[in-house]
Amino acid sequence: MNKIFIYDTTLRDGTQAEGISLTVNDKRKIALKLDEIGVHYIEGGWPGSNPKDKEFFKLMQGVKLKNARLAAFSSTRRAGMKAKDDPNFKELVDAKTPVICLFGKTWDLHVRDVLRVSPEENLEIIKDSVSFLKTKKREVVFDAEHFFDGYKNNSDYALAAIKAADNAGADVIVLCDTNGGSLPEEISGIIAEIKDRIKAPLGIHSHNDMDLAVANSLAAVDAGCVQVQGTFNGFGERCGNADLSTIIGILSSKLGYKTIPDAKLKDMKEAAFFISEVANLPIQDFHPFIGHSAFAHKAGVHIDAILKNPLAYEHLKPETFGNHRRFITSELAGKMPIVQKAEQLAVKIDKKSPQAKELLKALQQKELEGYQFEGADASFELFMKKHLKKYVPFFKLEGFRVHTERAANESAWAEATIHIEVKGKKRFSAADSVGPVEALDKALRKALVQSYPALEHMHLTDYKVRVLDTKDGTAAKVRVLIESQDEHDTWTTVGVHENIIEASWEALVDSVEYKLLKDSKK
Amino acid sequence: MNKIFIYDTTLRDGTQAEGISLTVNDKRKIALKLDEIGVHYIEGGWPGSNPKDKEFFKLMQGVKLKNARLAAFSSTRRAGMKAKDDPNFKELVDAKTPVICLFGKTWDLHVRDVLRVSPEENLEIIKDSVSFLKTKKREVVFDAEHFFDGYKNNSDYALAAIKAADNAGADVIVLCDTNGGSLPEEISGIIAEIKDRIKAPLGIHSHNDMDLAVANSLAAVDAGCVQVQGTFNGFGERCGNADLSTIIGILSSKLGYKTIPDAKLKDMKEAAFFISEVANLPIQDFHPFIGHSAFAHKAGVHIDAILKNPLAYEHLKPETFGNHRRFITSELAGKMPIVQKAEQLAVKIDKKSPQAKELLKALQQKELEGYQFEGADASFELFMKKHLKKYVPFFKLEGFRVHTERAANESAWAEATIHIEVKGKKRFSAADSVGPVEALDKALRKALVQSYPALEHMHLTDYKVRVLDTKDGTAAKVRVLIESQDEHDTWTTVGVHENIIEASWEALVDSVEYKLLKDSKK
Repeated sequence: MNKIFIYDTTLRDGTQAEGISLTVNDKRKIALKLDEIGVHYIEGGWPGSNPKDKEFFKLMQGVKLKNARLAAFSSTRRAGMKAKDDPNFKELVDAKTPVICLFGKTWDLHVRDVLRVSPEENLEIIKDSVSFLKTKKREVVFDAEHFFDGYKNNSDYALAAIKAADNAGADVIVLCDTNGGSLPEEISGIIAEIKDRIKAPLGIHSHNDMDLAVANSLAAVDAGCVQVQGTFNGFGERCGNADLSTIIGILSSKLGYKTIPDAKLKDMKEAAFFISEVANLPIQDFHPFIGHSAFAHKAGVHIDAILKNPLAYEHLKPETFGNHRRFITSELAGKMPIVQKAEQLAVKIDKKSPQAKELLKALQQKELEGYQFEGADASFELFMKKHLKKYVPFFKLEGFRVHTERAANESAWAEATIHIEVKGKKRFSAADSVGPVEALDKALRKALVQSYPALEHMHLTDYKVRVLDTKDGTAAKVRVLIESQDEHDTWTTVGVHENIIEASWEALVDSVEYKLLKDSKK
Repeated sequence: MNKIFIYDTTLRDGTQAEGISLTVNDKRKIALKLDEIGVHYIEGGWPGSNPKDKEFFKLMQGVKLKNARLAAFSSTRRAGMKAKDDPNFKELVDAKTPVICLFGKTWDLHVRDVLRVSPEENLEIIKDSVSFLKTKKREVVFDAEHFFDGYKNNSDYALAAIKAADNAGADVIVLCDTNGGSLPEEISGIIAEIKDRIKAPLGIHSHNDMDLAVANSLAAVDAGCVQVQGTFNGFGERCGNADLSTIIGILSSKLGYKTIPDAKLKDMKEAAFFISEVANLPIQDFHPFIGHSAFAHKAGVHIDAILKNPLAYEHLKPETFGNHRRFITSELAGKMPIVQKAEQLAVKIDKKSPQAKELLKALQQKELEGYQFEGADASFELFMKKHLKKYVPFFKLEGFRVHTERAANESAWAEATIHIEVKGKKRFSAADSVGPVEALDKALRKALVQSYPALEHMHLTDYKVRVLDTKDGTAAKVRVLIESQDEHDTWTTVGVHENIIEASWEALVDSVEYKLLKDSKK
């Protein structure tokens, strides 16, 4: 079975994506997750280009990776000095990574217009840069930037450039479609032409500007490349990099290659979502293999067929990479998940009973109103319990008021007052804050904490707002999702209302009640 | 130059996407936009499957399309009756479209497990269905569902199924990769094997479950298919359908095929965003060719190179499909757009002046605080004018209060009071509503309308909330975008604050001020 080496550059090329910014600690967390899932290389950054990356490599010197080799990235040396004198190369060596990835110019247009040196000098730069790093006993990956564009424009020169790296001892030559403008047949045609003229094994690095980064990576592997560079979830500049989860998915499940360990494939969804969460960039629902909708069926005829034979509308088992099947609408769709969930709550429901039917109807009503329980398991559990009359509330609201005020040239501020009844006692509390929802949250906790001291140990970690049917302007309904956490768990709750304060209140109450319910089971 | 027919199924297969639901009027608007941009076929729905689609086709009987032919969709006839007696076929014919697209089974697994008829009966069903519709003088497109999976499993039978349609007179045979599990080389290999055995021209219909729908469509065209079916923006069930904007982009700009008229290519971004807006599903920033980030450059070395030669990091001119280049960060990045924008406002700024530098610094500060002006041109114009001291406010805020209240078992409600000074007069007003932002909006207008009656003619059309850095929970900053509209224009404004009421207030004020400013220029 052929092995393909997976080279992840989420922490370097991925951070070029619009809207992404990783702290040193974020980078560490992602690196550990990548190591855990079994990628072979982790490119951590460009130590000479910014202090954050330098700090990351310093931090990683104290961390032992189980599977992956860590790589530091850099351009070839500056023109007009030797590699050994280039301060950027000093940083690179000081990063103390087993692997160094150097990118060099292979497109004559770049040599002339961007680097602004003679073609010969660029070849000398490549040679000197690679040779120097080989004397430092590093594994050297040479990223041939714009190789395909260069080859199309001046094939002799592009070839000479990678030969310079090859002859200087580069361990892998990675052919880059940096601008993402190449087609699969160009990729495989060019690789076939040059393959036998290079001693080192070849790799591929492609970008998604024509939605072909996955196809181009596959074409390159088919043509003989043994390393694939990409990022998790396809994060990257412009339209992104080649998406490693999809490429691993296809190579391992459809083409029989060995990529990450087989036993780790089922963890791919979890790893991808973890990285997405740390990077604070969403994974699209329609993402292949791992997306929320990747195995979601909506058409009635499809659902019907799936129930007869899942192969009918699924190209592989959703569980392969840790995903699962979902039926989006229709009465047929909803009963099974409800029954399953009820069983988790130790409530036996017959799928065909009037109770199941009624519960489903109530759920559909809630969904019609804009509730979405897929992302809010805690609220779903409370909803089920309330509907099945298995629930005793921990407190009773008598009323709240939330007030935001702003005077000319002053900052806005908010205060909340709340009346509740808890364990037979009336409680009144007030709190202020910069924003109304935080004020309300603080007031609620103040009122409850005497009776439920455990609430001291939970806090809110995430707050999301989505306006439903934005076309109604400020009168539209909003859906609020709140994520909370204590020492043991994380849970998510939901609220929906035309009034954002009320929607937030619903989610806050669910969050607190779920915590109390959870503790009471212990 | 070879012509490829573009067959759009956004209104049918696209509506299988999770989260999409189109009214009859939405469908009409999208159909007109598709016609305008020059697609050759528009599939409008399945008249026999739901009343909405039936109504759409009735409505379209009174609409004359300039370029496209309208198609109605259906399965082949039911088992156990003749096509002429199938009520579904009656609806199909009554839809009065020039084109009918029939999907039939070609995978023996589906015939056995889903349709549950004998292999022979399925062939008879296909033959009878196509023949009947040909007697009605329709152009018949035969969608060979699961053709590639069928061919891989039982090539004789899959071929027999499309031959049945071919012999019955189908005008085009469209090969479908319904489950999206096929690879480009499988697609082209299978088409090469069957091409000469079918009289009708061939088409391709692919799904994106492995991020290969675009590559598979291109492989099919290369193998001889002359029709490509897909949806705008790739909307569709699971991971979506083949994305027509990307496919048109590649076929027209890279491969020299004729697709939609050349003169329409530059309108593609606008058309894609229009469809997205009506469908209320976002276009991802990283979308090839047309996405907001598709030509956005973040790395300093890339920006520097682009300024020397745009080819350095762009595979084609962003304007080709109506997009434009953006520089995301760095001082270098910001000056040009500012100078350009200032010129639009008839303010001459020298790019190298201290004024330009200062303006840029102020802008970067705002962006750091979370403002995003790319989607909020009206707020950007106001920001520039205020900074350049070219702005006289239309009113002065003295203060506002917004109050949300909720009693046990009652619905939440909100009220707002506001004090302003306008044209030397103090005004005070109050308004109530279900939500706090709407109450504030109403109160503000009440206070202003006597002095500025033109405000009667504007209203808010969209309200969006995004929580910035969600990890801070309810204390996080939120960014509010408000879209407003009068008889002539639409404009968007932005506000950012930890307090959502204040963020909304900022966007509301900008919206009103922009309207007044705009009118004052007339």
